[in-house]
This record gives sequence, structure tokens and C-alpha cells, in this order.
Amino acid sequence: MEDNAILDRLEEIRDFVNANLETLIEEKIAFYGEVANVAGQVVLAGGKRIRPILIILAYELAGGENIDEIIPLALSSELIHSASLVHDDINDESLTRRGKETIHATMGQAKAIIAGDWLFTQGFGLGGRYAEDVVDVMAHYCSQLASAEFTQIDHVLDLSTSPEDYLEIVKGKTAGPFAAGCKGSALIAKATEHQCAQLLEFGTELGIAFQLVDDLLDILGDDRMGKTRGADIFEGKMTLPLIHALTLLHGQERIRLAEIITNFDDSLFDELISLLRSAESLIYSEILIKNHLERALGYLDGFAECDAKQLLKHVVTMVHNRHS
Amino acid sequence: MEDNAILDRLEEIRDFVNANLETLIEEKIAFYGEVANVAGQVVLAGGKRIRPILIILAYELAGGENIDEIIPLALSSELIHSASLVHDDINDESLTRRGKETIHATMGQAKAIIAGDWLFTQGFGLGGRYAEDVVDVMAHYCSQLASAEFTQIDHVLDLSTSPEDYLEIVKGKTAGPFAAGCKGSALIAKATEHQCAQLLEFGTELGIAFQLVDDLLDILGDDRMGKTRGADIFEGKMTLPLIHALTLLHGQERIRLAEIITNFDDSLFDELISLLRSAESLIYSEILIKNHLERALGYLDGFAECDAKQLLKHVVTMVHNRHS
Repeated sequence: MEDNAILDRLEEIRDFVNANLETLIEEKIAFYGEVANVAGQVVLAGGKRIRPILIILAYELAGGENIDEIIPLALSSELIHSASLVHDDINDESLTRRGKETIHATMGQAKAIIAGDWLFTQGFGLGGRYAEDVVDVMAHYCSQLASAEFTQIDHVLDLSTSPEDYLEIVKGKTAGPFAAGCKGSALIAKATEHQCAQLLEFGTELGIAFQLVDDLLDILGDDRMGKTRGADIFEGKMTLPLIHALTLLHGQERIRLAEIITNFDDSLFDELISLLRSAESLIYSEILIKNHLERALGYLDGFAECDAKQLLKHVVTMVHNRHS
Repeated sequence: MEDNAILDRLEEIRDFVNANLETLIEEKIAFYGEVANVAGQVVLAGGKRIRPILIILAYELAGGENIDEIIPLALSSELIHSASLVHDDINDESLTRRGKETIHATMGQAKAIIAGDWLFTQGFGLGGRYAEDVVDVMAHYCSQLASAEFTQIDHVLDLSTSPEDYLEIVKGKTAGPFAAGCKGSALIAKATEHQCAQLLEFGTELGIAFQLVDDLLDILGDDRMGKTRGADIFEGKMTLPLIHALTLLHGQERIRLAEIITNFDDSLFDELISLLRSAESLIYSEILIKNHLERALGYLDGFAECDAKQLLKHVVTMVHNRHS
């Protein structure tokens, strides 16, 4: 496939996912009224749809041929992702998401919690249609997501957070759901055990890289899903560049960095970045991203050449180059 | 079965449910750490286990003979119920539940939201093991639960709430999950379509009565699951006795009742109860409870006599006479 054809095909899949989400939400509003409307708006506000796209491509790569068979899982992944965003935004007190006001900002916290629950229910309802092995994979990774969020809260403003702590959080929060989607797809496509394992690893590596990029974008200031630059730092989240710099710097620089993280405000951005550069922490993150993406690509090696493989490789590149 | 044997058997089933919940939580703590521990404590803090007991009995009544086949659904119902309690308690700002401090009271709101999500995930993971028809029933009623909670929030301190509004909320919040459990069990037991429908109606009627009793207990002051007497009134929840009295009373009594509901505090309890008695609202609720329970019993008529039927009839009596 030519580069243009690849981009067109990815756009086509995204449109297909969006159309399916729109139909679903419309149907659900007829049944469940306001909660479906409110929660549905979050889902339909946009987003890269990387989880459902990965699921569809992993399914095709693993030999799946009936798109109808994989749609519920693809939609399920986006609904559960949206549910966790709604609840995250409450906990992070974020007032906007994807450029729109969050539910708790407009309708209050109670409705936001319930709207998130409704999205979980819809997601699990769709995911629950599959065989027990698929359900188990999805339930396991969603449970790990909750576990990782607990750990993340425990490490808020914890300046002694280690790279291992960070990796554990990222694996649970982002890599787990990516991995679960890829493995779930392989199971549904009745791939071999080896292929299922390869796709699980592919999703894990891609997910780690995705989160590392996300954390870099928070610092470097691109507009991530309508969230403010520096949101993670304001929330006291210990991302890898901070952890790395806190580990490497010493003396006055270390003291100053700790002060900046603990009492962050917008005026400190330039100084923060200069300290991170001094420790080469941004470069370190970039190298790690590259490494994880290369490993992700490696897990695709064993699969026969096909359109889905080319598209997945392109998704890997997109994760590398993404600015939002 | 003799009365004593019935009580013993119900106690046995409750112990069996509790033992299974304990094992499950213990296993999950090994995997998911603190979040499982924190959420597990809510599940294991006690409770009547009426949902899992109903599920097991409905399964047996519908001809199911393999208890292992129904356990996941029974546990799932209690986990999802616990999840909704954790989130309700945040929204109601309740500091205790079942005599213990709530999660958000001890660990903060963020962890409470996530612990609830974890319980949902566990519940759906177990429920997702069943065939699509069962999953659809469970997902539908959980979605309705969220929808009913939205409606309930909209009616907080809304003195013009109608009995129909109330019934819609109760059907979604309590009757729906009861009904879904009973119907789900019948489906798993491969009961006839007619039997599935009868058990769905049985669960609905029992669930409505259960909530009506709960609302009466809030006013009459028994200790409901460790919640304070009058908690609903403090939270501005429009329960049937209040709605009924607001409809029937007029003149000074109506004005005073509205004042009491709007600015409730403990010192107003006696006056509130005397106004509710003046409108015969407590008697009205009691008659409705009796009617719904009689209808529930009627839906059991078509089933052959068996232990499960006797036990279910006893559960109906227990709902009538419960004091907590």
C-alpha cells in the first residue's frame, strides 16, 4: 500500500468506528434518556479512536475476516476508555476535555460519576458478548487499570517515585488496555497461542510508548485532547521526565526542581524545561519511546505481510509523531 | 419444609454466598492489591445478600441443578450492588455504611470512585461469562439503574415529584436489578420463556416492595444498613410517603410539610411523622408494600411446589417484616 492509501484506509476505519459509535449512542438515548445523552456526548466529542482502530487491525492481522464479529469489542474499548476519562476528570478536577466542558463541570459530580458508570456498563455489556477467555482478558486489564490508578494517587507529589513505579502505573493505565484489546482481538480471530502472545506484547509496548509521548506532550505543550499544557504537573502526577531529572540532578538544581514540582505554576514552565534539559530527561524519554516502539514493531515480524500489518506499522509511526 | 428448616436453609445459602465472596476477594487482593482490599472490605462488611440469594433460588425454582453454574451471577450481582453503593455514598456524602466508615470518608473521593469502578469491573467480568441473552439482561438493567439515578437527582427536593416519577426511579434503582437477577437465573437454568417472564415480574414486584420498605424504614427509624435514620430526607430524596402526603395535605399542613422537607433536621422528626400520619401516608405505603408482595407471590403460582419455592415465599415475608 502507498502512504496515501494507508492514511485513507486509517481514516476510513476511524470514520467507520465513529459512525458505529454514533448509531449506538443514538439507540441508547431512546432507551436510557439523559444519562445516555450526557455520556454519549463525551464519547462523540472526538478522540483518536486508537483503541478501536488497534482492535480492528489486530483482528485482521490475526486472520479475522468477519468485521461484524469484532465491532462490539472495538466499541466496548472506546466506551470503557470514555468511562475512565469521565471519572479521571472528576478526580483531576479537570474542567475541559477535548475542548468541551466536562460533565462534572456542567452537571455536577453526582451525574458525572453515574454517567461514567453508565459508560462502563455499556462497554462491559458489549464486551460480555464474547467467550469467557476474551471477557477474562478485558476484565483483568480493567481491574489492573483501577489498581494502577490507586498507585498513581499514592505517588502524587511523591518525589521519590522510581522509574519502576512509573512503569507499573503506565502498564496498568494505558499499556494494559492496549494489550487487552490486541490480545482479545487475536482470541476472537482464533489466532494461535503464539500470535495471541505476540499481539499482547505489541499492545503493551505500543501502550507504554503512547503514555510516554502523552507525558512529554504535557510538558512540551501540544494540545493533548483539549487538556491544558502542564495539567499532569499541576495534578502532581510524577511523569518519567520529572522522575528522571529528580534522580539525575543534584545540589541546587535538584532542590530547585523539587520546589518547582511541589509549587508549580505557569510562570515556572521555562525554568522547569531548562532543568529537564539539563538532566537530558526529555531526550531520555524520547529514546525510551523509540525503544518501545521498535520493540512493538518487532512483535509484528512473525505475521505475514498484509494490509493490516502495514496499517499497524503506520499506527506505530503515528504514536511516535503525534502532537495531540 | 418446616419454618425452622427454611430459616436454616436460607442461612446456609447466605453463608455459602459469604464464603464465596470471601474467597473471591482474597484471590483478587493477590492480583490487584490495595484497590481490591479497599473495595473488598465494602463487600465483606455484611449485608443481607438478598440479590445473590434470590438468584440462587430463582435458578433452582426454574429447574437449574448445577449450583456452580449460577455462582458467578450471584456473586456478580452483589459486586455490582456494592459498586453502586460506593458511588452512591460519595454522591450522598454518607460517612458510614453498614456501620463502617465509607471509602471516600477514609481514603478520599478519588480512591472511592476507582474502588467502585473496580467492583463494577469484577461484577461484569463474572457476569460476562454467560451467554449473550443473560449479559444483555444484566447490562440493560444496570444501564437503567444509572438512568434512574439521573432522574432521582433531578427530583431532589422537587416537591412536585409525582408517584409515577417515584415508581420510575424505584423500578430502575431496585426493582430492575432484582428482576434482572431472577430473569438471568431463569435463562441460565434454561427455563421456558413463560417462566423467564414470570420470574422477571416476580423480581420486579419484590424489588418495588423492598424499596418501599427501605423508604419507610428511613422514616420510622430502624437502622438500615448502618445508615442514619432520615438519611433520605436529609438528602432531599422524595420517597413515596412524602410524595403522598404532599399530594393529599392542603392549607397549613401542606405548607408546613413543605417547610419541613426543605429544611429538615432531626428536631422535626416527630412533627414530620405526625403530618405523614395525618395524611395516612405511612398506611398507604404499607398497603402498597402488601399489594406488591402479593403480586410477587402470584408470579410464583405457576411453578411446581419445591423447596426453592418455599424459600422464595419466605424471602417475600422477610422483605415485608424486615427491620434493617
